[in-house]
Amino acid sequence: MSIFTKIVNGELPSYKVAENEDFIAFLDINPNAKGHTLVVPKKEENKIFDLSKEEYVALMDFSYRVAKALEKSIVCNRIGMSVIGLEVPHVHVHLIPINGMADMQFMKKEKLSNDEFVVLAKNIAGNFE
Amino acid sequence: MSIFTKIVNGELPSYKVAENEDFIAFLDINPNAKGHTLVVPKKEENKIFDLSKEEYVALMDFSYRVAKALEKSIVCNRIGMSVIGLEVPHVHVHLIPINGMADMQFMKKEKLSNDEFVVLAKNIAGNFE
Repeated sequence: MSIFTKIVNGELPSYKVAENEDFIAFLDINPNAKGHTLVVPKKEENKIFDLSKEEYVALMDFSYRVAKALEKSIVCNRIGMSVIGLEVPHVHVHLIPINGMADMQFMKKEKLSNDEFVVLAKNIAGNFE
Repeated sequence: MSIFTKIVNGELPSYKVAENEDFIAFLDINPNAKGHTLVVPKKEENKIFDLSKEEYVALMDFSYRVAKALEKSIVCNRIGMSVIGLEVPHVHVHLIPINGMADMQFMKKEKLSNDEFVVLAKNIAGNFE
């Protein structure tokens, strides 16, 4: 069982920003930039292009809505999107409020306190439509 | 007019792998890894999340089909996906056959000859459904 399935099941905590029957979105706890969010299908699949086209399109649709909430919550140049998946074998879409290329390279990391994560997640959740 | 619109209009050459009425996909000429492909909406828009949800979902759907063609054409761990857009202000989805994190960081680059690009584009186009 992946760490993301444990989050889906409530066995691990997360700073949740959005959820529906099929997907969950929560803050990355080791963010590239403030507001870095992971969008995860509740169905545990390793590779994104092993999802059926319908599952994939639904994931992308949900990610669009999360990205719009991030745009309303965080001042940034734009929202970047990345799907890699080499570390956790459970599909996750990175949505990252970026200002420069370094925000997309997963090397520079941002430190936030628990309180900052809580407030941030609440703000983004409040902007999710 | 962006360099991608010039490619769409045939004013600049490209190693094309797929095209329909709304989208075009061609090889990145400065690839992170062999098979690195860009999927571009013919409509010139700067930021991906400024596309309407319908335009965005159609772009993602087309990108899925290109990714499937890449999987059939290139031996790799998986196809990574990234949308950044800080350099060319015209939406482009990076689809990258990856084996490690470095293939997603846009720092390590692969050199291919014109002949290699031509053969590669033809192979991928032949696997596009």
